[in-house]
Amino acid sequence: MKATFMYGAGDVRIETVPDPIIQEPTDAIVRTVRACICGSDLHPYHSLPASGIGTPMGHELIGVVEEVGSQVTAVAKGDFVIAPFAFSDNTCVFCREGLNTACIHGGWYGTPETGGLQAELARIPQANGSLVRVAGVDPDTADESLLASLLTLSDVYLTGYHAAHMAQLKPGQTVAVIGDGAVGLSAVLAAKQLGAERIILMGRHQDRTSLGVQFGATDVVAERGAEGIQRVLDLTNGEGAHAVLEAVGHLPAYEQAYGIVRPGGIISRVGVPQYEEAPIGFGSLFGKNARLAGGPAPVRAYLEPAIEQVLDGTINPGKVFDRTVTLDEVPAGYAAMNTREALKVMVKLA
Amino acid sequence: MKATFMYGAGDVRIETVPDPIIQEPTDAIVRTVRACICGSDLHPYHSLPASGIGTPMGHELIGVVEEVGSQVTAVAKGDFVIAPFAFSDNTCVFCREGLNTACIHGGWYGTPETGGLQAELARIPQANGSLVRVAGVDPDTADESLLASLLTLSDVYLTGYHAAHMAQLKPGQTVAVIGDGAVGLSAVLAAKQLGAERIILMGRHQDRTSLGVQFGATDVVAERGAEGIQRVLDLTNGEGAHAVLEAVGHLPAYEQAYGIVRPGGIISRVGVPQYEEAPIGFGSLFGKNARLAGGPAPVRAYLEPAIEQVLDGTINPGKVFDRTVTLDEVPAGYAAMNTREALKVMVKLA
Repeated sequence: MKATFMYGAGDVRIETVPDPIIQEPTDAIVRTVRACICGSDLHPYHSLPASGIGTPMGHELIGVVEEVGSQVTAVAKGDFVIAPFAFSDNTCVFCREGLNTACIHGGWYGTPETGGLQAELARIPQANGSLVRVAGVDPDTADESLLASLLTLSDVYLTGYHAAHMAQLKPGQTVAVIGDGAVGLSAVLAAKQLGAERIILMGRHQDRTSLGVQFGATDVVAERGAEGIQRVLDLTNGEGAHAVLEAVGHLPAYEQAYGIVRPGGIISRVGVPQYEEAPIGFGSLFGKNARLAGGPAPVRAYLEPAIEQVLDGTINPGKVFDRTVTLDEVPAGYAAMNTREALKVMVKLA
Repeated sequence: MKATFMYGAGDVRIETVPDPIIQEPTDAIVRTVRACICGSDLHPYHSLPASGIGTPMGHELIGVVEEVGSQVTAVAKGDFVIAPFAFSDNTCVFCREGLNTACIHGGWYGTPETGGLQAELARIPQANGSLVRVAGVDPDTADESLLASLLTLSDVYLTGYHAAHMAQLKPGQTVAVIGDGAVGLSAVLAAKQLGAERIILMGRHQDRTSLGVQFGATDVVAERGAEGIQRVLDLTNGEGAHAVLEAVGHLPAYEQAYGIVRPGGIISRVGVPQYEEAPIGFGSLFGKNARLAGGPAPVRAYLEPAIEQVLDGTINPGKVFDRTVTLDEVPAGYAAMNTREALKVMVKLA
């Protein structure tokens, strides 16, 4: 099969490798229908040291089950499924609490063992927990916009949803979303779903913030840093936002977050932090009792109700996709996301 | 009157200064019955640069109202009152949300404007919000242990309570408390009140941890650092604690906290951070969706029910006091707390 590998910053290649096979009785093999490129894939695209060994790429897909191991009962050959970006058994103590990204039998794609999902075929570990069937949809005949929205449930929309969920939003509150990438826009849509009254989107790319307004943003702040902080304070009677959803992952976005969070409010991060140390002392979080939450989204825990919302048209998160490429064109897809020509790139398998 | 001033690290002096007077119609003057020395007073005791101008000290007292300004209606001359360690109007938007330490008309004691509370008399700003009457108690005849417990409601017990409250404890959960100082022991007592099933107290002073066990600790871990982390993991099936109440304020205590917090759990800090930057990236908080909460305790918001609990004997937080000094002996009280000869020192006014 063909699959995507990264050999260093900016060096993405499509290669032909052996088809994955069932290794454990809990595995399934899925034939990819749609995959996509994640904002987090751009972090290694900027910084991965050059290597003679390629890193398998991709962690989002919808597809059709080709084969299942002897212990797989939740899905069967021919099922149309969504694969959350982390695999999990969905039965361990953490999964039962809705924190599938801490599953004791779980893990991440994009390792030599599990491979990446920007590929024609994928081996899905712990398939009983890691795949969710979408009943009543035939991927060969389904509307492109439906497929796009279902694909966002693999990661991007439900990562935005996780930010809003962990912020413990209450109806009527003011939310600020930092970042107008696909996760930030998804966080806007999720905040709206969860009852936020005012949603301030901080981003400076007008084509993107326009989609944010479609998704429910009531205000757009293009300024950054001290100026952006002041704008948000001005918009909130000097108080700041009850919840700040940080969908970037770079330190300046976090610094902006504690500048605009209301005393007693919550900063909820879903952009993978590209830093380890950051201010959390009296002058940033402690003095105003600001809280910090977030992490890798336990997409699996949110998946079934979100599928319903997509199928019944309540939400249409697939609008974040603005470009579609073939698997052979994936390197160009990375380049387009990197230069911000594309917001989010879908990969359509043949 | 006599009052306490600090002129630099280790240099605490009792001086005679003019009696405070009503400056604003919202002020009250209170005659101190009992004050005390706070663990947070030891931070400047270690590090305050020497100066020719003394810093007024103290932020905890119970006392009797001597005089009130023309707009003060909540208390009257002769009332026996508790003063929370931060003053607040208790009516602003943040006070109404229970975050009195963010009061837009509030502030801290120990500044040249407001003075300190380790003094014979104190000017209390925003007295309608900042003082709470304790009905039915005559401080001249009340039991010493009752006065001690009421005094803890000015800060130390309700600071421990804030840690437990912000950790959103659910009955049956496992809590780890870092620090066997008076706040840590108070956090144990509060966690027990809030239904924690297992309370692991991390501290190495056996006389203190013994009181912690009286307050409800089920396990004591004397080890620190990597060894202490491993002990807590061993005690929790490798999972860590649902809530970690950090009652120290130094960076190693925070590092211990993220080492022992369970995936999805909460670190709640009430020790005033003696650091600004600390790890919060993938390897500390983000990867396991650990949350961070805490800050200066809005004691005022918790005060009335806590007074009831002290009066009816449900809680006896005053046991944290193990030494009583006169105002003139306050410098010796600081020294005794600094060398850990005393856990917490009460100041008994003549």
